[in-house]
Amino acid sequence: MLTSREIRLKSRPVGMPSAENFELAAVSVPDPAPGEVQVKNLWMTVDPYMRGRMNDARSYVPPFQLGEALQGGAVGEVVASADPALKAGDLVQSFFGWREAFNAPAAAVQKLETHGLPPEAFLGYAGMPGLTAYVGLLRIAELKDGDVVFVSGAAGAVGSVACQIAKIKGHTVIGSAGGPEKVKFLRDIGVDHPIDYKAEADLTGAVMRAAPNGIDVYFENVGGAHMEAALMAANQGARFALCGMISDYNSTDMGAGVRGLFLAIAKSLTLKGFIVSNHADMQAAFARDLADWVAAGKMQARETVKHGIESAPDAFLGLFKGENLGKMLVKLA
Amino acid sequence: MLTSREIRLKSRPVGMPSAENFELAAVSVPDPAPGEVQVKNLWMTVDPYMRGRMNDARSYVPPFQLGEALQGGAVGEVVASADPALKAGDLVQSFFGWREAFNAPAAAVQKLETHGLPPEAFLGYAGMPGLTAYVGLLRIAELKDGDVVFVSGAAGAVGSVACQIAKIKGHTVIGSAGGPEKVKFLRDIGVDHPIDYKAEADLTGAVMRAAPNGIDVYFENVGGAHMEAALMAANQGARFALCGMISDYNSTDMGAGVRGLFLAIAKSLTLKGFIVSNHADMQAAFARDLADWVAAGKMQARETVKHGIESAPDAFLGLFKGENLGKMLVKLA
Repeated sequence: MLTSREIRLKSRPVGMPSAENFELAAVSVPDPAPGEVQVKNLWMTVDPYMRGRMNDARSYVPPFQLGEALQGGAVGEVVASADPALKAGDLVQSFFGWREAFNAPAAAVQKLETHGLPPEAFLGYAGMPGLTAYVGLLRIAELKDGDVVFVSGAAGAVGSVACQIAKIKGHTVIGSAGGPEKVKFLRDIGVDHPIDYKAEADLTGAVMRAAPNGIDVYFENVGGAHMEAALMAANQGARFALCGMISDYNSTDMGAGVRGLFLAIAKSLTLKGFIVSNHADMQAAFARDLADWVAAGKMQARETVKHGIESAPDAFLGLFKGENLGKMLVKLA
Repeated sequence: MLTSREIRLKSRPVGMPSAENFELAAVSVPDPAPGEVQVKNLWMTVDPYMRGRMNDARSYVPPFQLGEALQGGAVGEVVASADPALKAGDLVQSFFGWREAFNAPAAAVQKLETHGLPPEAFLGYAGMPGLTAYVGLLRIAELKDGDVVFVSGAAGAVGSVACQIAKIKGHTVIGSAGGPEKVKFLRDIGVDHPIDYKAEADLTGAVMRAAPNGIDVYFENVGGAHMEAALMAANQGARFALCGMISDYNSTDMGAGVRGLFLAIAKSLTLKGFIVSNHADMQAAFARDLADWVAAGKMQARETVKHGIESAPDAFLGLFKGENLGKMLVKLA
């Protein structure tokens, strides 16, 4: 019998969430029943999309339930197994995050082959955020030779991979992020024109100076003024992959208005929203490409790590304050 | 020697244009030189896109020049010919609108075969506006069986054809327009759920009541609140053909902000702007389909007609006041 601490949704946030919306609770985890495994989580992820699940609204994933542990990606180690498919010591990936340990049917977790990468990479550049960048650039934005690429939220988990994939493929990359430390990170990963949007009174002007001949692809993580700058800087036929609009996630109404959308007509732009889970068919190609890029030393990861399950709400809230450089993670063991 | 009156751009409008931005002038038209034809225009068109050409800004068509006659679609009759390709009495289509008569190289005008339609139809449902509706629905929005279609500006030149094509293809159509006369017209052309947006305090609510199971295609002619309503009512995977945003054309900055664009992510929407001139390859298929639809009595046209070249500025200004039911035309002779 183990004790596991977990984070539950205590109340639904209105606007920006706060610590009061979460509560820490402890539960007993019995020995695994036949067919089950018992897992101790090593790492869990917090991601901006989770904000949407805190609302009681129909969306592409169902809302979190009040009084229950939150869910999300995690990597852990099997500590006891009552199923032949897994044994103690196996690393597994699951959607049972926001808790220290759990029992689950063996089929509900996925054995993790790390191929020499650290396990937490599979919550970041080698996992869902990495696949999101890959899908967004290659399928949604239909990246092609010569495209000039603008990435917002460029120092984040998805954005930093998007920038690196675009550089690997030989593109000129403009990346925006907030603050000098993030801009330095963007230089480190090869971004040609890092923009500190917090230091720019005129973001549109900054993007247009960075891309005097315009942008062909925009990878959208932020929304608002970033989208407006991209519309202004876009070339004829530019493609926008709409991945996230973190600036709107805590809005209590319909978010800030985006002006200049009429430019999409004169410029024949294509704007496509996407959810990575609809593109799981690209996982195998992504894993192959990623292995090559890692082997060639072309993929750098940066992580911002908080420690202990009790810090998970703080890690999540930090996403909306721009506290994370690269992937925000919580180390549980 | 003929005298032709023409409308010139006197000054560039800032915001909503007014009569003062235009001037009427008279020019002499000599006998046509060898290789030229002399044409008397019968009809000219005014279209919302012309507003963009009145600004001194780079776009997909160059700006109108101050002090020169405006340009635009026209149908006319050859009155004298110095080229064997055309003879007096031939009907021709040209881009030499906003004037009563002109000389031009024979190759700069296009002989018009009316196939029994009135000549002015080729400035409306049988011409550029009709092709725009056809391209927008079939190629840009990728209309497919079962789609519920929402058309804004539904009583206009393009919108009314879009509604009718969607009905011919068996779709449920929601159309919005301003005022009871236009709503009656929408009923006449078979729109299932006409919405008088001027009578609705909550346009989003009206669209959602008209389409309780959501919309799959949005044909955008208006922008602003109409776009927001479409984003809210859109189903997963809905496609938006962005054809026009007349509510923004006279904005002196970047137009009204569109809220709710983040919904494009969760719903995996595709928003595509387009310019009909990039899709001239669909002209032949459009002409064939249109001929069938006209023969079967399935295509109704409505026109709002002003008389005389001196009324052309007023006709143009009327577009932004919603004065036109169907195609706005100026009858010149």
